[in-house]
Amino acid sequence: MSSSKRLDDLISALQIMPGIGPVSAARIAYALLDYKRPEGLRLSEILKSALNEIALCPECRNYTDEEGQRCAICEDFHRRDRGVLCVVETPQDVDAVENSGIFFGTYYVLHGHLSPLDGIGPSELGLDILSSRLAQGTVHELILALSQSVEGDATAQYIAAIARKYGVKVTTVATGVPVGGDIRSTDGSTLALSIENRREFR
Amino acid sequence: MSSSKRLDDLISALQIMPGIGPVSAARIAYALLDYKRPEGLRLSEILKSALNEIALCPECRNYTDEEGQRCAICEDFHRRDRGVLCVVETPQDVDAVENSGIFFGTYYVLHGHLSPLDGIGPSELGLDILSSRLAQGTVHELILALSQSVEGDATAQYIAAIARKYGVKVTTVATGVPVGGDIRSTDGSTLALSIENRREFR
Repeated sequence: MSSSKRLDDLISALQIMPGIGPVSAARIAYALLDYKRPEGLRLSEILKSALNEIALCPECRNYTDEEGQRCAICEDFHRRDRGVLCVVETPQDVDAVENSGIFFGTYYVLHGHLSPLDGIGPSELGLDILSSRLAQGTVHELILALSQSVEGDATAQYIAAIARKYGVKVTTVATGVPVGGDIRSTDGSTLALSIENRREFR
Repeated sequence: MSSSKRLDDLISALQIMPGIGPVSAARIAYALLDYKRPEGLRLSEILKSALNEIALCPECRNYTDEEGQRCAICEDFHRRDRGVLCVVETPQDVDAVENSGIFFGTYYVLHGHLSPLDGIGPSELGLDILSSRLAQGTVHELILALSQSVEGDATAQYIAAIARKYGVKVTTVATGVPVGGDIRSTDGSTLALSIENRREFR
């Protein structure tokens, strides 16, 4: 307990953020109070409007500025190849693919993977929206960039079946030894797949 | 750049908090958007009211819930000894002393130390308020718990002179080897003071 209840409330509210424990929360609260009040008030406003307004893009289900509006990537008609669609699990995966600098198609964000035990089925992942998008006939290749796990694999199989129904080619990102990684510290399953999927040396 | 400008704004606004860089900010923003919207909106409200309302206690200059109101420690008439006053540099120092569990007097928070080159003189530290508090005659001991630095020492000397004018006994926290610390890793200045201020072994 500190000298002010409001301060205690702030320190405990800050701890909803991942990676922020009691010590960091106190440090942040005191920094904002001591010498960053205007910046802190601006953060409060931005946080409020972001959480109230940010919605899902009706086309790709990535985050977009407001309800019903297409996201910045789907809006970018000039630079984006609408024939190639990359399916990912989370909006953060979109950022990761964007940062690779090699992909100029569009995305589809699932916000999870199939998990019947948790009540997450095809409709929770918006697969009806994905189907109708494939039915339009503009997409010729669907790239699966899902997590390499049992649930990720099951989701990939399910989506691949939908895509094939519309005659869309389905590919998946390669599994293998990461750039800069060494063989001796790569786990057995990754190494097994990277040997199975070996390519001709050029 | 992500898919939403509001999201980009949120990620950059979160970085005003000490210890939060671009990676943590993105992680926090996505966590709030993905599954913590109500908690995030509540944080926004609490942050706003804390930064708008929290003021300085008129008696000790520690943080208090609102302008003109005494802080929780000064309000605690039953448990607090008003004869002993502990002077600290920051509100966080108050928390540290409180956590020691041994002090039941009241505090005075300077919010800094004397630093003429930065334009911080006696009035910026509220030493006039401290003087009038000592003039009341209820305080019989003033404990200096200031940082062990040149500026901290100068500030201590200045405050001690005021206190002596009112016939108040002035003490300071002991400098020495921390509990659990070993001699071989204690710096020379600390060790020199801890030898100079050695006490009888019991």
